[in-house]
This record gives sequence, C-alpha cells and structure tokens, in this order.
Amino acid sequence: MAEIAPVSGVRLAAGAAGIRYRDRDDLVLMELAEGSAVAAVFTQNAFCAAPVVVARQHLAKVAPRYLLINSGNANAGTGENGLAACVETCRLLAAATGVAMNQVLPFSTGVIGEDLPTEPFARTIPGLLSGLEEDNWQAAARAIMTTDTRPKLASRRFEVDGRMLTVTGMCKGSGMIRPDMATMLAYVATDALCDRDSLQQILEDAVAPSFNSITVDGDTSTNDACVLVASGASGMDVSNADSEAGRLYRQAVQEVCMELATAIVADGEGATKLVEIRVEEASSEAEARDVAYTVAHSPLVKTALFASDPNWGRILAAVGRAGVQGLDIDRVRIWLDDLCIVSAGGRDSGYTEEAGQAVMEKAAFSIRIALGRGEAAARILTCDLSFDYVKINAEYRT
Amino acid sequence: MAEIAPVSGVRLAAGAAGIRYRDRDDLVLMELAEGSAVAAVFTQNAFCAAPVVVARQHLAKVAPRYLLINSGNANAGTGENGLAACVETCRLLAAATGVAMNQVLPFSTGVIGEDLPTEPFARTIPGLLSGLEEDNWQAAARAIMTTDTRPKLASRRFEVDGRMLTVTGMCKGSGMIRPDMATMLAYVATDALCDRDSLQQILEDAVAPSFNSITVDGDTSTNDACVLVASGASGMDVSNADSEAGRLYRQAVQEVCMELATAIVADGEGATKLVEIRVEEASSEAEARDVAYTVAHSPLVKTALFASDPNWGRILAAVGRAGVQGLDIDRVRIWLDDLCIVSAGGRDSGYTEEAGQAVMEKAAFSIRIALGRGEAAARILTCDLSFDYVKINAEYRT
Repeated sequence: MAEIAPVSGVRLAAGAAGIRYRDRDDLVLMELAEGSAVAAVFTQNAFCAAPVVVARQHLAKVAPRYLLINSGNANAGTGENGLAACVETCRLLAAATGVAMNQVLPFSTGVIGEDLPTEPFARTIPGLLSGLEEDNWQAAARAIMTTDTRPKLASRRFEVDGRMLTVTGMCKGSGMIRPDMATMLAYVATDALCDRDSLQQILEDAVAPSFNSITVDGDTSTNDACVLVASGASGMDVSNADSEAGRLYRQAVQEVCMELATAIVADGEGATKLVEIRVEEASSEAEARDVAYTVAHSPLVKTALFASDPNWGRILAAVGRAGVQGLDIDRVRIWLDDLCIVSAGGRDSGYTEEAGQAVMEKAAFSIRIALGRGEAAARILTCDLSFDYVKINAEYRT
Repeated sequence: MAEIAPVSGVRLAAGAAGIRYRDRDDLVLMELAEGSAVAAVFTQNAFCAAPVVVARQHLAKVAPRYLLINSGNANAGTGENGLAACVETCRLLAAATGVAMNQVLPFSTGVIGEDLPTEPFARTIPGLLSGLEEDNWQAAARAIMTTDTRPKLASRRFEVDGRMLTVTGMCKGSGMIRPDMATMLAYVATDALCDRDSLQQILEDAVAPSFNSITVDGDTSTNDACVLVASGASGMDVSNADSEAGRLYRQAVQEVCMELATAIVADGEGATKLVEIRVEEASSEAEARDVAYTVAHSPLVKTALFASDPNWGRILAAVGRAGVQGLDIDRVRIWLDDLCIVSAGGRDSGYTEEAGQAVMEKAAFSIRIALGRGEAAARILTCDLSFDYVKINAEYRT
C-alpha cells in the first residue's frame, strides 16, 4: 500500500462514544474547508437508513462542512425515531461549530433496527472538534470498522503544472456487500478544485468499475454511501476532463476507489480468497454482469473456492442458470487464470485436475468466462464462502 | 409419513453398480407396464446434462417402458462423450429387455464433469431385471440419494367408484436446489389411466407450488427432472379434471409432490430449520416470488435463521433490495409466524426480542411479508445456512 498522504483542507478526528463497542473509537468527524465541493452516491435499497435520507436532503441544499460517521449502529429500520435521532446529531454538531444544521452529513453503520442514542454524540463531539488533524486518516479508518478485520485506506499523489495534488480515501465494509450505487461508507478526499457537477460525474465514473463491481454475499446494505470531496486547497482546477490535471485526477480517483473496493472484498467476512470474475463475448454488458454475479453469488461455487476445489461443473451450472436466452453451450469457454478448463460444452481436452487445483490454491486468481455471443464484457470481484462467514454472521449480535 | 403403497403396473429394483459409491446401491431401474402414460418436466439450466437431452428426445417419440437412474455421476458437462455414454446405457437395457432403445429414459445425479463409465451398467442390469418388484420403493429411494441424509417418499391412496387408486413418489435432492421447472430427480407413479396431455398438465400444475417453490441455495441443477407415471393398471380414467376421480387424483398428486418437495428442503444440505416464506399484497405474483426468493437466498438472513437470531433488519434489507419499484416502506409489515416484527418502516411497537427468538428457535416456522401494494401472493420453502452446508460443499469431491 502506498503511504497515506493527508489532504490539505480536510481534517479528521476519531473518538470513543461507546455507541455499541467498548474500548475502541466508533465516531469520526471530517471537517471540510469552506468552499469544498462534495459529491456522493448512496444505496438503492428501498429500506435506506435514516442517515441516508437525511444526508441526501442536506446535500441537495447546501455545501457540507462536516461529515459525522458512527459505527456500531446503522440507524436503519428505525422509522420516525431514527430520523429524529439523526437530525439531532446534526443539530448537536451545528450548535458546537456555528455551521447550519444541514451543512452536516450524517453516516451510520452497524446493527440494523436498534434506536440510535444521541447522548454519546453530545458527550463526544467537543473532544472530536479539539482533536481535528489533517493527519488522522489511519485513526479514522479504524474507527469506522465493524466486522472488518483491518482498516482500508488508499492514496495517490501526482504533480501537474508544478503543483502536487493528493487523493486519499478510506472505507469500511466486509459483509452485506453488493453495492448497488455505492458501498458501505467510503470517503475519498482530494485537494483539487472542482465544480460539483464534474465532481459527481467523476465519482460515478470511478464507482462503476470499483465499488459497484464487487460482491461478498449479494446483500445490498441499507446504509451504503460513497463520498468524494474536493477541498480546493491546492488551487488546481480539475473540472475539465480534457486538461492534463483533469485527466490525471480522474485516473487517481479511479485508482483509489479500485484499491479500496478490492480491500473490501479481500476482507470479506470469512474470506480466504480474492477472485476476479471476468465475463467476455457477451451480447450486452448487462448480460455479462448477470452471468458474473450469478457465478459470484452461487453458494456452491463459493464453497468450492473455499476448498480450493476446481469443481468447474459448479461454475458451468451457474452460467447455465444465469438466464441467458439461447446460450449455445458449445461456444462457452472457461478459464482459471490462463488455464482453459471448459470448452465445447465440457472439460477442455488439455485440462488436468492438478493444474486446476494449483490455480485454486492461490490467494487471488481469476475465473474468465467467454460466452461466444458478442463483444461486451464485465468484471467483478468476489470472495469465497467459508466456515467463518457463517460463524461471523450467526454470532454478530450476540 | 403415510405408509408407502406399491403402485400396480410399476416395478422397481436397486443395485450396487459402484459408479461412484462403494458398498451401497447407486443404480435404480423402474419398469412401467405396457400402455403407461408418462409426463415429465426437466431443468431449464442451459447446461442441461446428457441424460436430460436424451430423455427429452426419447420421450418425444415413444411411450417409455423403463426409467434408468444412476446416482454418483451426473453425466453433465461431459460433451459428446457424455451423450454417447448415456445412449449406450439405454442400448444395454434395450438389448437385455427387447424394448426399443428410445423406450428407456435415462437419469443421472452426482458429481458434474466426470465421464460416465458404462461398464458398471452392463454388469448390474441383469441383476436389476431379475430383482424387479412392485414393493421396492424404499430401496429405490435410498439408491438415488447423494448428499441426502434420508430417503424421501410420499404416498396417497383414495377410493372412487369402488376402486382404490394409488399415488406414490420418491425423490432425492439436498443441495444445488432451486428448481426452475422441476427438481433433482422426482418420480411419482400412479395406477390411474390417463391420457398423456392431461397427465403432463396435472404434473405441471402439481410442480408449480411444490418442486418449483423451494430453494436451498439458489443453484439450479443441470440434471433436474420430475416424472409422473400413470400405469393404467387400475383401469380408472382420471383424464377429465371435472370427474370425481380426476379431481381426487389431481389432489393426491399435488399432495405427494408437496410432501416430497418439503422433504428436500427439510433435508437441505446442513439445514437445521424449515422456513416458509410467504409474500402477500404484492402487485403481481412475479413480484411476490422475487421478494420471497431474495429473502430466501440472502446469506445474511440464512445465517440468522441458523443462529435463531430474530435479526429482522436483515429480512427488511433483503426486501428493500429485491427490486420492487416504488416500494412504500411504511406499508410493509413482516411477521414471524403470527408475531408482527416490522410495521411502518421499523420495529413493530408490540415486538420483543424474546418473542422473536421463541419463534426462531422452532424447527419450522414462517416469515410472512405484506407489501401493501396489491392482491398477489407467493409461497416458497427454504432452509438456513449452517456450518455444515459449507463443510458438505467444501468436501464433496474429496
């Protein structure tokens, strides 16, 4: 991992509010310099959490100055009480800082369906405000973790016209991961100057191949959010996609999003394998994605991945049930990395179990599926299904 | 379970061919009386197995006299070799009995992607032919098992116009269970007289709410098949749906299919819970089924079921991501059996964790979801996701 560079114009603090966890930080405050542009994407789950509802409303009205993120309680499925509690946390921070209440964007992650207490916020906010530092990314990334086993950070720096720009991000996520528009809490901050419409487009372009192309268990969260901040502190305008600064900036944002998204899958609940599923020669990108997700979500494929068992029949069965109309199975080919395992409707003549197992025993490898129907392709990242996934999720609330 | 009554006109035998398993029966022969009508439904998986291809072809041409079923090797993903081996097994039986080759319907279940040896068939068929008995259902049901932990049988008898009719069925299935048109190998035999078109309609009507409404892991098999036989031995014609015989017959077939389908889910790989998911007040049956299957396939819901944890937030999150356009979450209500857990977008005011856990600790219970959108409903059966599911499927081929 590259060194995590602070972003001028963005300060962070983490504190222990005791919302759910004891003896660890669970509340993060991000302060954005005045004039920062903020773009965001949120979950498409119809049961979106109270903070998603409130953050969307606030973002539609004014430029945010603070992001307030708690782990431990998702404040989802909490009805009117949840909305009131969420607004109250924004009000507490606004009162302490003098900004308008709707300049605070709230985010929550953790258990669903329990009322969010606001007293821990009242108690912890003063300390957070006095602890704000540009160099607090590591502590913040730890404080937003739930079932994650490690903090997830990524950073890129690049020079353009003699000025240095920085893109640094953090995220959390391990289970309930199949982002629909974004993923479980990701924050990418930059010191670039950017108009908000351009920034939103840059974020959406970066999210599509990264956070929107990963799955751990197919469960889309109620709280997903991904935020991109341009503090403007560098004075370098990146709005124009055709400028060198604009081009390098987009590339850096995409790289950071991809690195963070990959880190989520690699830290998927109980995961022991990181697997890229690439579907090619599809008649449309939607078809390619359907096939990729069908393979990625198959419990039988996922347990075979866990066992390092090149049981390609399960991959083939998943491709076969993916709903592709008129699929000609004789044209389908499947590879593990560069090893062809299926051709002409059955096991490839050059395939051996030993060679298949050698690939499957790697910590990271790809499954490539060519459908023989067209030119479209899709790529997603997933992981295996292990004993520990069941253990983690059977014991989460106890 | 009701007693398993033999069916006049249908004889069975089971034998140990050693195709995959040692020291147990793995090959079943069913002989159908001349003049029997046979209806069948097969998997919709594009990668359907060689025996599915061959059975469909044979069934289209003549009335079958024999069903030949092996467990241990699915003969799927085996290309031209698989088709040739399958045809050869039919030819062997035809040569030994004097029927035409295409009067044999072949069925296979077991590991995918390995060539099917035909020599075990040649060796075992003579013993099977000499062992045919009407009273061999129990032995046959054991011989078709793979990861099943128990044989699955169901039987109904009823009297009409002074004559007794019998409907008896067996099936196997435990993993790779989300039947699309049928399920993994089910055979229902009756001594009724019925024309083939009526019989096919009766079968399809019975399969829709039974085998086509269950899921263990969402994986549709390459080998699914369900067969309904009317031997005609009773002389009682049931073709007419409006006659008393026709009505009682349809009801008996439906009951047998439902009992067998329920047995598959109850014996789902690693399953400890049998859970009915009922979605009501949907705007269409397809919508109701989408929601039901989204909940049933959610690994987070399934692990909560395993843990007896009334983590209703996971159910709510699954409903929310089921793709229902314009879902008004304030109208959604969810019950565990008769206990309301969710209303008005959050936890029902009368709900307690203790009451929720009391339901979840039962071996069988229902999750009922009302969407508040219309009149349509759907009902499916599923099971939980346990350590043993992972263990069984991580170790299946070793």
